[in-house]
Amino acid sequence: MIWLDAGTPALLGLDWGSSSLRAWLMDARGIILHVHYARQGILNLPDGGFAQVLSDILTQWRLDDPVPMLACGMVGSINGWLEVPYLPCPAAMSQLANGLGLQSTAYGPLHIVPGVVKDTPLPDVMRGEETQIVGMMGTDGDGHRTVVLPGTHSKWAQVEGQAITDFRTFMTGELYAVLMQHSILGRLPATMPPDAGQRDEAFVMGVRTALSGVPLAGRLFSARAAVLRNRLERACAADYLSGLLIGDEIQTGMTAMDITPPVLVGEQALCQRYQLAFTALGHHAPPVAGNTAPAGLFRLAQAAHLLDLPPTHFHDQKGAVA
Amino acid sequence: MIWLDAGTPALLGLDWGSSSLRAWLMDARGIILHVHYARQGILNLPDGGFAQVLSDILTQWRLDDPVPMLACGMVGSINGWLEVPYLPCPAAMSQLANGLGLQSTAYGPLHIVPGVVKDTPLPDVMRGEETQIVGMMGTDGDGHRTVVLPGTHSKWAQVEGQAITDFRTFMTGELYAVLMQHSILGRLPATMPPDAGQRDEAFVMGVRTALSGVPLAGRLFSARAAVLRNRLERACAADYLSGLLIGDEIQTGMTAMDITPPVLVGEQALCQRYQLAFTALGHHAPPVAGNTAPAGLFRLAQAAHLLDLPPTHFHDQKGAVA
Repeated sequence: MIWLDAGTPALLGLDWGSSSLRAWLMDARGIILHVHYARQGILNLPDGGFAQVLSDILTQWRLDDPVPMLACGMVGSINGWLEVPYLPCPAAMSQLANGLGLQSTAYGPLHIVPGVVKDTPLPDVMRGEETQIVGMMGTDGDGHRTVVLPGTHSKWAQVEGQAITDFRTFMTGELYAVLMQHSILGRLPATMPPDAGQRDEAFVMGVRTALSGVPLAGRLFSARAAVLRNRLERACAADYLSGLLIGDEIQTGMTAMDITPPVLVGEQALCQRYQLAFTALGHHAPPVAGNTAPAGLFRLAQAAHLLDLPPTHFHDQKGAVA
Repeated sequence: MIWLDAGTPALLGLDWGSSSLRAWLMDARGIILHVHYARQGILNLPDGGFAQVLSDILTQWRLDDPVPMLACGMVGSINGWLEVPYLPCPAAMSQLANGLGLQSTAYGPLHIVPGVVKDTPLPDVMRGEETQIVGMMGTDGDGHRTVVLPGTHSKWAQVEGQAITDFRTFMTGELYAVLMQHSILGRLPATMPPDAGQRDEAFVMGVRTALSGVPLAGRLFSARAAVLRNRLERACAADYLSGLLIGDEIQTGMTAMDITPPVLVGEQALCQRYQLAFTALGHHAPPVAGNTAPAGLFRLAQAAHLLDLPPTHFHDQKGAVA
């Protein structure tokens, strides 16, 4: 089989979350040869679905020889394919690489990255983000950094050198979704769809409530009261609420943790919203690193010596693929 | 018609909210002769439903002569029977009494209590609670008090003498409901139903997270993480979350406002949970005043001289009832 303008497949990396799956086929330098994206999250699969999805991906990419396989995310949770225990924080990249779980498949072993846990001051966990953070380390030298991963359950993590030293979860995305879909704040029927400028304005207005001195629980209701008082267009209430929650996350994150200049890791449009919120609160807009999961998977595969193994390692487990 | 062991009907008071209606028939001393309670909130009524409900209540109580009628709550909102403008905070009882709206009905005028609004530091509104607070004033002398009204949208109000001088809304009850019903925090299937002691323990554990130094948005996810870490029984996650939210409300309320000893106003079981939370945070358990809405309606009716009007005032508008 001939790969035009690309290296030989050397690693199948998977970020297998609750609602979606991303897979990358990489060469020995970490260059991405193929990408697969689908709503095949672990909560969307039938029984036995893990093996079938993996088989479909490998078939689709017509891999003649097996490659090392490394997955991160909820696939390693109690509801996943194989539960891989959390590692305690601080967690170094080398510890993550040494803590990989091993799920046997028809195509050889699937390695799975452990999550990270801390128990003080309150219990908190991550699973999947540790790999994105490792991907950030790889492009970011050995200093002390704050990595912000916006999302359903946003994570703010402290990184020193090659270790995750602290982190905290904010339920920003999920709070926004449930409040818009199910609370009184979402029952504000829009009249006219707002333009982008109006939406940004309402977003920033929401962000700036973080400077009011009123704590979050006392600010949420202002999304409704501001509409009742004609301070806010009904159609912009969603943007105001989004700003209110993201502003709270940033204000809290920037004051509560031992903060170094942050870097945003994640989906472009959401990271841009966060950049706007950072500036509305008087901070510099952090750089956006995009999705660092494939880089993290590649670095962990290197650290675990998965790329050093002879092809026979995989052939021993399965003679040939497809 | 003969009223045994009771005075002559002198006031029909209604607390007409979004989801429920409570009505009290009172004599000239404010003693309650009859109570009506139904899920006839303004959001549950068909078009024209207001007049029908009122007619049903008066018919049920066989009132031979019309009585003054005073309502508070969402019946005075834009979605109610008649929109009555908010009064700005600080709002004295006399201002509320002078600001009553007037809806004509087949049984004479229905007076409606205005809500109260403040626009700084953030917009906030109340509608219905002002009447409960007035009812509190009536039993509580002329001092400076904090009145806490737990509920879907909890209110913390400052009262000086006969005026509401400040207030703040916490979406505690609604946050709890939407998070339990629609977020990942509610998707923690219970194994065995816990006993009351275990539930109180989990509740207090949640309350005490308010002392962790971690802000609310960063604490919510601990309800999930604590279960994953076996620090919390799945079946007790609801109580933990309830404690977490109520604890945050109390901790915020007691530090952010100019606090005097609080009094709890509202439903008995919920007020008892709040008492437990106050003590878990090192405060005295506030006294519970119960439902002060009928007392507030009576005091406002007195202040508005509704009870002084001759019966002909009502007969002028409607010859006789039923």
